[in-house]
Amino acid sequence: MPRIDLTIIQQSNGTGYPAPYAAAVSGRWVRRLAPTCGLSDFGVSHVVLKPGAASSQRHWHEDEDEFIVMLSGEAVLVEDDGRTVMRAGDMAAFPKGEPNGHHLLNESDGDCEFLAFGRPPLGDAHYSDIDLRWAGGNYVRRDGSRY
Amino acid sequence: MPRIDLTIIQQSNGTGYPAPYAAAVSGRWVRRLAPTCGLSDFGVSHVVLKPGAASSQRHWHEDEDEFIVMLSGEAVLVEDDGRTVMRAGDMAAFPKGEPNGHHLLNESDGDCEFLAFGRPPLGDAHYSDIDLRWAGGNYVRRDGSRY
Repeated sequence: MPRIDLTIIQQSNGTGYPAPYAAAVSGRWVRRLAPTCGLSDFGVSHVVLKPGAASSQRHWHEDEDEFIVMLSGEAVLVEDDGRTVMRAGDMAAFPKGEPNGHHLLNESDGDCEFLAFGRPPLGDAHYSDIDLRWAGGNYVRRDGSRY
Repeated sequence: MPRIDLTIIQQSNGTGYPAPYAAAVSGRWVRRLAPTCGLSDFGVSHVVLKPGAASSQRHWHEDEDEFIVMLSGEAVLVEDDGRTVMRAGDMAAFPKGEPNGHHLLNESDGDCEFLAFGRPPLGDAHYSDIDLRWAGGNYVRRDGSRY
């Protein structure tokens, strides 16, 4: 497999988010490249965001470094500090444990495409704008109750 | 640091290759992004290859997964099976332990640019075309003698 052929890798818009938080990512189409390519040291996801879609709910991880690079189109990176337009070749890094929630929003009228790198997190994730937390392998409310 | 500003990250064309193998990578300019960005789960290098430069001597790692994505320009990916032209958006994965040496050559007349992902290898690396091996933290000949 010299050059990765994306067309043979399954694309999914699935999410584990409970309603009503799932709707924001219904236009997020993910290909998980690492299993297909035989990589296990880190994960690589190829993501297409349809117009209006978010990459995730805005979040940060206690124990997962994340890195993204834009491949095409335009997305807005939203963090605590504000909004940054991201275009092909633009990159951003999200070190674990930094409590600055982030996500990408496609506010354009065309698709955008990026790669996301990370390792499967063992610890919790925190959601900045909504009553949601990933804790102990489940999505829960901030008071710890299950959805 | 919402969008990574490459211009503030130091660029180096250093190499540990012994002569005469160092010359091939003298036009390879690397920025190590992970330390600057606070990432430790995996490494990310931004690499510019000047015309004529190679990304490395052709090699494979016993214990390091590698992944590359082209950002601009054109390079030729050389593996045991042959040559593949890589352009912006093209990706390739090199699973650890697969004895298929790989590198990128810039045979064009302009710069090319890519990102390379991996984790610091603890084990050996094997060089496909030359009398070189990375073993026990040193560059040695195939017979084990030091340079």
